[in-house]
Amino acid sequence: MHADVSAMPEHFFASDNVSGIHPKILEAIARANHGHAPAYGEDRWTEKAIQVVRDTFDTDAEVFFTFNGTGANVIGLAASTRPHHAVLCAKSAHLWTSECAAPERFFGGKLIPIEDRFGKLTPEAVAPYLKDARGVHTAQARVISLTQPTEWGTLYTVDEIRAFADFAASYGLLLHIDGARYANAAAALDVTFAELTTHTGVDILSLGGTKNGLLGGEAVLILNDELATEAAYARKQAMQLASKMRFIAAQFLAYLEEDLWRVLAKHANSMAQRLARALGDVRGLEFVCPVECNMLFPRLPPRALESLQNDFYFYAWDQDEGIARWVTSFDTTEEDIDSFAVAVKDVLS
Amino acid sequence: MHADVSAMPEHFFASDNVSGIHPKILEAIARANHGHAPAYGEDRWTEKAIQVVRDTFDTDAEVFFTFNGTGANVIGLAASTRPHHAVLCAKSAHLWTSECAAPERFFGGKLIPIEDRFGKLTPEAVAPYLKDARGVHTAQARVISLTQPTEWGTLYTVDEIRAFADFAASYGLLLHIDGARYANAAAALDVTFAELTTHTGVDILSLGGTKNGLLGGEAVLILNDELATEAAYARKQAMQLASKMRFIAAQFLAYLEEDLWRVLAKHANSMAQRLARALGDVRGLEFVCPVECNMLFPRLPPRALESLQNDFYFYAWDQDEGIARWVTSFDTTEEDIDSFAVAVKDVLS
Amino acid sequence: MHADVSAMPEHFFASDNVSGIHPKILEAIARANHGHAPAYGEDRWTEKAIQVVRDTFDTDAEVFFTFNGTGANVIGLAASTRPHHAVLCAKSAHLWTSECAAPERFFGGKLIPIEDRFGKLTPEAVAPYLKDARGVHTAQARVISLTQPTEWGTLYTVDEIRAFADFAASYGLLLHIDGARYANAAAALDVTFAELTTHTGVDILSLGGTKNGLLGGEAVLILNDELATEAAYARKQAMQLASKMRFIAAQFLAYLEEDLWRVLAKHANSMAQRLARALGDVRGLEFVCPVECNMLFPRLPPRALESLQNDFYFYAWDQDEGIARWVTSFDTTEEDIDSFAVAVKDVLS
Amino acid sequence: MHADVSAMPEHFFASDNVSGIHPKILEAIARANHGHAPAYGEDRWTEKAIQVVRDTFDTDAEVFFTFNGTGANVIGLAASTRPHHAVLCAKSAHLWTSECAAPERFFGGKLIPIEDRFGKLTPEAVAPYLKDARGVHTAQARVISLTQPTEWGTLYTVDEIRAFADFAASYGLLLHIDGARYANAAAALDVTFAELTTHTGVDILSLGGTKNGLLGGEAVLILNDELATEAAYARKQAMQLASKMRFIAAQFLAYLEEDLWRVLAKHANSMAQRLARALGDVRGLEFVCPVECNMLFPRLPPRALESLQNDFYFYAWDQDEGIARWVTSFDTTEEDIDSFAVAVKDVLS
Repeated sequence: MHADVSAMPEHFFASDNVSGIHPKILEAIARANHGHAPAYGEDRWTEKAIQVVRDTFDTDAEVFFTFNGTGANVIGLAASTRPHHAVLCAKSAHLWTSECAAPERFFGGKLIPIEDRFGKLTPEAVAPYLKDARGVHTAQARVISLTQPTEWGTLYTVDEIRAFADFAASYGLLLHIDGARYANAAAALDVTFAELTTHTGVDILSLGGTKNGLLGGEAVLILNDELATEAAYARKQAMQLASKMRFIAAQFLAYLEEDLWRVLAKHANSMAQRLARALGDVRGLEFVCPVECNMLFPRLPPRALESLQNDFYFYAWDQDEGIARWVTSFDTTEEDIDSFAVAVKDVLS
Repeated sequence: MHADVSAMPEHFFASDNVSGIHPKILEAIARANHGHAPAYGEDRWTEKAIQVVRDTFDTDAEVFFTFNGTGANVIGLAASTRPHHAVLCAKSAHLWTSECAAPERFFGGKLIPIEDRFGKLTPEAVAPYLKDARGVHTAQARVISLTQPTEWGTLYTVDEIRAFADFAASYGLLLHIDGARYANAAAALDVTFAELTTHTGVDILSLGGTKNGLLGGEAVLILNDELATEAAYARKQAMQLASKMRFIAAQFLAYLEEDLWRVLAKHANSMAQRLARALGDVRGLEFVCPVECNMLFPRLPPRALESLQNDFYFYAWDQDEGIARWVTSFDTTEEDIDSFAVAVKDVLS
Repeated sequence: MHADVSAMPEHFFASDNVSGIHPKILEAIARANHGHAPAYGEDRWTEKAIQVVRDTFDTDAEVFFTFNGTGANVIGLAASTRPHHAVLCAKSAHLWTSECAAPERFFGGKLIPIEDRFGKLTPEAVAPYLKDARGVHTAQARVISLTQPTEWGTLYTVDEIRAFADFAASYGLLLHIDGARYANAAAALDVTFAELTTHTGVDILSLGGTKNGLLGGEAVLILNDELATEAAYARKQAMQLASKMRFIAAQFLAYLEEDLWRVLAKHANSMAQRLARALGDVRGLEFVCPVECNMLFPRLPPRALESLQNDFYFYAWDQDEGIARWVTSFDTTEEDIDSFAVAVKDVLS
Repeated sequence: MHADVSAMPEHFFASDNVSGIHPKILEAIARANHGHAPAYGEDRWTEKAIQVVRDTFDTDAEVFFTFNGTGANVIGLAASTRPHHAVLCAKSAHLWTSECAAPERFFGGKLIPIEDRFGKLTPEAVAPYLKDARGVHTAQARVISLTQPTEWGTLYTVDEIRAFADFAASYGLLLHIDGARYANAAAALDVTFAELTTHTGVDILSLGGTKNGLLGGEAVLILNDELATEAAYARKQAMQLASKMRFIAAQFLAYLEEDLWRVLAKHANSMAQRLARALGDVRGLEFVCPVECNMLFPRLPPRALESLQNDFYFYAWDQDEGIARWVTSFDTTEEDIDSFAVAVKDVLS
């Protein structure tokens, strides 16, 4: 897929999970590394971090810290479904394309992929999938899962999320959000987590941290009371219950306090904008969808794409269509962007 | 179970996962926190750490880093079984008692618990479970899983492991070791990991790190070539594939280089011996099984046990029998031991 | 296991599922074979059969016809559990020994085998398994499953079942009965199905039919309202929803009307008693447990056992212990018994 | 969906599983009802039936009789997949739409629905789903499942099946056929089962019987040697192992001997043709796809459709599109067809 990584610039555009740990996060881990603490989340860091998540989201939701995003998604879905249920999601959703059937294996039911437009679904696109449940023969739709931001870096507005929550509720369904890059969405929309989540009627949220400066850690928020017990056991069964939980909790404390999450996400988003601006008028390149957070999807001539990949580490998103994916991170610098932009222009000239 | 933890001494005897991160491990994480690195284990730290594990174990086994021990166990078993298979384990095994049916849920087959003696099984105890497979009606025994050290802190010698590997092979079965505290076993037996594992014929090992000074990280070693492909997918499906893998790999690099694992385990073991010696002659207390690594199982009068729990954080292992479990860690100090011993004597006098 | 079956008497003692279809059952199938009928249980035979089951059991329980007994058990358990639950059963239970991990695979949780005495459990034997649920680490006991009659042909009295139902309820658990030979139990105890089930507080029943004269058909009774929806989907997912359901329903109509079930079971039971009487005083043979319904467990010298197996088709229950299992059926004749008894005496003399 | 069924003609057009048992099949059951027989398929009827299946298909494939079609499909797929695998099928496939996630629940992996044209897939439609397997992140395509005839009653020719088998093999995939109405396909194509299956390179076949005159019974043919052991256990775990197997085997003996299957299927197919001819020129009705076997999909004005459903039992296939589904059976008579045709014309005039 790419040439020798060690010979490349030290900052990549492959994904935001190629970045490291933000210094404040690492400091928080070091500070929590003092003495002994009860295991499995019975410690005071976890207690406090849960409270901070609740305060930030303006909710008394149950909060479950997990190791990674697939784990967070699977726990949220397992807590809200039985094996005869179906989860409706975008055809481009990570859940459908990139979790190697972990959801199906773990919760036992069905994912149903729905054609999306640059990652986004609409109630209108989902509605036809809700009309035809023929009794026990059909897996029963139970959850609508949206990705925010989508895999194409596009965003649902607060109003769109609220409309989806109302739509789901009107069918007796639950609304799940895969928020692996949730900070980037909230920062781009310039709203609080509470506005985007609790106040819109989201039932279950996978709140990412790893892609925005954490060593590793995500959280599942169960905003629907009825599902909380299930989630606690699901986390254990999903092998996502950390014994030294304090070190995930400590990361979230640093992440949420003083809105570090927003500072980092805003920076990543602005780096994407900088790159989009730098390449906006370049001949031979077009962005196939709006650059709304920290992801860019340029269409390039195949040869240019490959040539760039020799020097920079990023993925071809759709080889046949000549579409690449570039992702900026909390630690992407202006120099990274500028020198990359020069290289892109070079290869296209 | 216990009174106010924050009022207790800062070192606990509840488990070795109440301890924190060894400074060298944390330094290794900090050192790896430089620039970007390919995700999901495609980075150079992971490449190197795998090689170091292989060198340490004198094997070319496939190595899979995971988040936690239940994950490691489940991946190892999932890679080696089909849903019509059974895994034979001790009735006291973590696998059976403390993983909330995660193995059954994930691999779909059967765990069969066998009566053990202070955690240990013998081929003689296992053999009766192998004679009666009535075709498709019975889950087919496929794996024997031993815990080393056992949940009672007892040890299998190198010869005992080798005999079990031969026994398993003679039935066409695989030998799995749950080594959440593997370092403590190897240190206590004064053998290398290679001698205890590769040279005895173990097929699959869950190699613990978290309980011996890591922030969090375990490894699955697949010493049997045929199982490796399965394990790679099983790790992903088991939600144990870290995106920022370099930070688990870096921990293992520090853990294995210069035998840090052994230094830490030896210390924990010696603290247990110190406590055993200090309380050896105390009236009203007996250790119900030999203290072979870093775990002690004293029988105490119920009232004494409860009284101690008011001041020290540890578990009653068997309330009815008045048996407690005390676990020492890499960071347990001589002062911890000595002042605890005094307190125990006090409460018994 | 046995010599040429075609050279043996046409009636076997291997199991009651070696028997065929009672003529009245076959007639009922033929009578239902008229015209078209809605599929999947929407037909009038099924509607009527469900009503007859309800009347017979004096309940308004949900009733689900299934193909076979493993299916019935799995549906009942799947409807009443989540994957973090455990089902407690006898170590000798079919569920544990003979369903090839189908329950674990399908419901995802844990079966916990408990030492039994000739198939029977007591609340006292079960109680220790209920005291030690350590939060999310342990699969949570949810169902106690008893086999009636047990695999050893022993019976729980109405009072024992009621005591178990009360015991289960006092722990917030459900009581499941595997009644593959339920007719034999009710006939032997001389009680109605209602007295043995609904009036004692059973929550879920697998009601056998196949072993007592049906071509094939079992029923799951969900006597606990909360579980019914789950069961309907579980039957479909468990691949136990017959399209031509009327032909299972018709069998149950014939089976329950005019107490055919009792007539057939009583006969089978009496044949077992006849054999027990005939061999009661024979030297070299003892029945290792009371003969309470249609199953006998004689201990014989190994050589005698093998010699008998050359001429008669039955199983060695425990080869090492020299214990055989003989099962009588609805169509076992007095001649079958008498000539078999002679043969047994011969081989022992 | 429909009005009072009991007031309707006794033959329905809802599905072929509303039909009963062909007299020869019922006779075969009655003939097998003699004496005792070893259970679980160890009997001579099963032995013979397996041989007859093999002879009919010109293969030495492993043959597993099952209760129903979902069971057959799930066993075939479970035998050929691991949980990280994906099965590619038509979006209209029964597997995807009508098995309530039983496949996902049982084998643990992913079904991937592909847009079809009146039920049919082409290698060209499947190919794009095979190019993008990103290592462990994506469920790995392992099986292509075709439905023959499709849910729309359309057929794959022998050449099309062979081309698909070659296509699958070229990607290292297996070809599975869901043949719930396989007899109708072979009869319509005027080929033997061997020509349609073994000689084209099919790996796994679900061979239906229930919809074409059996009381209940299907068979899984595993034409690929490597999968046979898995299938045997999968049948048991899938709760599809009949204890009184002889009564399924006896049905298949009668079904395959003297080509009863073909006689019955040809009749059903010809009844569909008769109906198609009778309504071919009727104004206000068109068949939306070719009538190739025993299924018709007419488009009717919604009011006409509903009016007809008051008097005849059949399903609206797509309410919004005004498409109904009519299915003829082995026992549909010319009078059924003719009087129904009159009624349709009436309602449209």
